[in-house]
Amino acid sequence: MISLPLEKVYDAKDVLSKIARKTEFIHSRFLSRKNNIFLKSENLQLTGSFKLRGAYYKISKLSAEQKQKGIIACSAGNHAQGVALAARENNIKATIFIPATAPLSKVEATRAYGAEIKLIDGVYDDAYKEAVKFQNETGGIFIHPFDDEDVIAGQGTIALEIYEQLKDVDAIVVPIGGGGLISGIAATIKQIKPECKVYGVQAQNADSMYVSIREHKRVELKHVNTFADGTAVKLPGNLTFEFCKNYVDEIITVSDDEIASAVLLLMEKEKIVSEGSGALPVAAIMFDKISLSNKNIVCVVSGGNIDVNILSRVINRALLKTGRISNLTVELLDKPGQLKEVSSIIAHYGANVIRVRHNQGGEGTDINDCYLKISMETRDFEHFEQIKRALVDAGYNILSTVQ
Amino acid sequence: MISLPLEKVYDAKDVLSKIARKTEFIHSRFLSRKNNIFLKSENLQLTGSFKLRGAYYKISKLSAEQKQKGIIACSAGNHAQGVALAARENNIKATIFIPATAPLSKVEATRAYGAEIKLIDGVYDDAYKEAVKFQNETGGIFIHPFDDEDVIAGQGTIALEIYEQLKDVDAIVVPIGGGGLISGIAATIKQIKPECKVYGVQAQNADSMYVSIREHKRVELKHVNTFADGTAVKLPGNLTFEFCKNYVDEIITVSDDEIASAVLLLMEKEKIVSEGSGALPVAAIMFDKISLSNKNIVCVVSGGNIDVNILSRVINRALLKTGRISNLTVELLDKPGQLKEVSSIIAHYGANVIRVRHNQGGEGTDINDCYLKISMETRDFEHFEQIKRALVDAGYNILSTVQ
Repeated sequence: MISLPLEKVYDAKDVLSKIARKTEFIHSRFLSRKNNIFLKSENLQLTGSFKLRGAYYKISKLSAEQKQKGIIACSAGNHAQGVALAARENNIKATIFIPATAPLSKVEATRAYGAEIKLIDGVYDDAYKEAVKFQNETGGIFIHPFDDEDVIAGQGTIALEIYEQLKDVDAIVVPIGGGGLISGIAATIKQIKPECKVYGVQAQNADSMYVSIREHKRVELKHVNTFADGTAVKLPGNLTFEFCKNYVDEIITVSDDEIASAVLLLMEKEKIVSEGSGALPVAAIMFDKISLSNKNIVCVVSGGNIDVNILSRVINRALLKTGRISNLTVELLDKPGQLKEVSSIIAHYGANVIRVRHNQGGEGTDINDCYLKISMETRDFEHFEQIKRALVDAGYNILSTVQ
Repeated sequence: MISLPLEKVYDAKDVLSKIARKTEFIHSRFLSRKNNIFLKSENLQLTGSFKLRGAYYKISKLSAEQKQKGIIACSAGNHAQGVALAARENNIKATIFIPATAPLSKVEATRAYGAEIKLIDGVYDDAYKEAVKFQNETGGIFIHPFDDEDVIAGQGTIALEIYEQLKDVDAIVVPIGGGGLISGIAATIKQIKPECKVYGVQAQNADSMYVSIREHKRVELKHVNTFADGTAVKLPGNLTFEFCKNYVDEIITVSDDEIASAVLLLMEKEKIVSEGSGALPVAAIMFDKISLSNKNIVCVVSGGNIDVNILSRVINRALLKTGRISNLTVELLDKPGQLKEVSSIIAHYGANVIRVRHNQGGEGTDINDCYLKISMETRDFEHFEQIKRALVDAGYNILSTVQ
C-alpha cells in the first residue's frame, strides 16, 4: 500500500516555514448548522493558493546541478504562480508554458513573479507538448503539478496545520483536481489521527477521480467542463489515484450552480474570495452532501485566483439561482399611471427594482400594448411568488419570468 | 485635553475576548513598495466589520435595569449588524431602525441576528427621527454608532491587537466616517507608543472630519455622496472631533475611483472582500498620498459588507479606469473578412475580446457602412494604444474609445 513518509511532511513544514503563510482558520457561523464548520483559508496563501507549498518544497529538494538547469512548468493557473514564486525565492530560472486562452490576469500575475512566460496557441495539451519539447532541448526540470511525492508532501503540511489548529477535527473536506492536495492531506492526517474522515469533492463535469475510484482504475475523461477550472483535470495521477484509493473515505460531486452559490456565500458571509475549485467543499456542505452531524468539519478553501470578470458572472448567476434577483415581464395597457402602479406593488412587498425596460409596440405585442421588463432584488423565491400573485390580483398579465 | 482611559480599553479587550475575533494580520506583498504594508483585516470580523467591538462593549456596560428596557439603534449598515449580534449575545431585545433605501442584503443580515427591524420610508435622518420617537416612548437605550466613550474604547482594542501583532508599527492608517474607529485607535496607540503616526482617510465627497479639522470646529456638510457608504457622515461627533484634533496626525482624502481601485486590488491580490469604506486606507497607499518611506504601515480594512450588486459595478469601473477593460468602436466596410481581420489584429497583441457588437446601417452611419463595438481585456492603457495604432495602420477608422 502506498504511503507518504511523515518525516517528509515535517521536513516540508520546516522548509516552508520560511515562506508560506500558516493560513487563518475561520469558524463559519453561517455554515455551522448540522455540523461545526471551519474554513482553512488557503486562498489567503501567498500566490492565492496552496500550490506554493508543493512547488516550493519540490524545488528546495533539487540538487545544485538540477537547479542550475532551471525549471519548467505548464499551467494556466495556480501551479504557474506557485512555481514562479518558488523559483524566484530559490534564485532559479523558471520557464512556464501557458495556453494562450488563459485569462490575462493570471498570465500577468505569473509574469510579475519573475518567470519567463511562453504563451502557446491552443489549449493545455498544446502548451504541455511545447513544455516537453523545451525540456528535451534544455534538460530543465519539469515540475509536475500533482503526481510527485515531494509536491504531495508539501500539500500535506496543510494537514499538520489543521491538526495544530483543531485537535478535535472529525473530518476534512478537500477539492480534487489531479489529486495532489487531497493525497497530501489524507496520507498525513490518517497517520496522525486515523479516525479523522477525509472527503473529496469534484465538479460534476470534471469528476475523473470519482469515476476512477468507482471503476477501480484510472479513467481518462473525454471532456471536462466546469467553471471550477483549477480542478478540470481529465486523468488522475498514478500516485494520486493510489493515495485516494487508500486514504480517502468518500468522493462527492457538486454542480456548477452549487459551486457558484458557494463562491457567493464565501464572499458575502465570510468576506473572502474563492475560486470555483476552492469553493467545492463549501458547496458540498451547503447542499448537504455529507452525512455527518454534530462533527467538527474543516473545509479546505484551496485557492482564490478567480478572474474578476468571471466573478461578476458567478455572482449574477448565484443571485438568480437563489431567488435573490428576479426577472419579470409584465404586459401593460398603454395608458398613464401603469408604471407607477406596478412600481408601487413591488415596493409594497419590499423588493428593490434594479433595472427597468419599458417597451412599446415591439414585435409579438399588439399594436396598442406595451410591456415592462423588470429586474429586482428579492429575498427568495417565495418573496417573488408573493409579488407575482399581487400583480395578477391587480389585473396584470405576466408574460415571462425568465430566471 | 480629551483622553481615553487605557484601562477601559484593556477592560474592553477582556470583555470582547469572549466574542470578537482577533483578526488576521496580513502582510501585503503587492502594496509593499515604498513601505512595508500590513492589513488589519476587520472585514473578517464577525458581522463583517469592526462595529461589533464598540457595540458589544457598550452593551456589556449597561446596568441590568437598562438592559431590561432593550436597546435601540439606527443604521443602514455595519452598526446595525454589530448591535444586533451584540444584543443577541447579551440576551437583550434590540430594535433597529433602517431607512427603506438600504440594500436588502443588509436588512436581511441584521434580521438574521435576531433584531427587530423597523423599515422607515426615506433616508437615514427619517429613520433616526423614528428611532428617537421610539426611545421616548419605550425608555430604551440608544446606542450611538460613534460618539460614545464606551463605543470608542471598544474600537480602541484594535490598536492593542495591532501593537501585539507588530511591535515595530510606525504608522496606522484608518478610515474616518463619524470618527469612532480612529478615535479609539489613535487615543490608544498614542498612550502605548506615542511615536506611532495615525492617519485618517475620508472619501473626497464625504470629508466632514477633514473640513472640520481644517476649520477648527465641527462643520456639517450639506451633501455627502460616495460609494463608501459606511463613512458617509455629514457631521462628526463631539467626542470624536476632539479625539481627532488631539491624536490624529493627518487626514487625507481619496476619490471614489481610487477607492474602487483599492477594493479591486484587495479582491484580486489579497483575496479579501472589502467595502468602499474599508478600502480607504489602501486607496491612500496605492495612490501615494502618505509621505512616508521604509516604514511599517498598518492599514485598517474596517469592513467587508458591500452589496454584491455594487461590487460587480465597482469591479467594472475599476477595470475600465485602469485600462484593463477597453472599449472600441471601429468602422467597417461592409465586405467579407473584416471582422476576422480586426479580430486577428487584436489577438496578435494578446488582448482578449469579451464582447462584440456588429451593427449594420445604424443611425449616423452611411448606408453602406457598418461598425463593430468591441470590449476587450487589456493589460493597461499603453497596451490599448498599441492595438489602436495597429488598427489605424491597417486602414481602420476608429469611431470612439469610450472608457
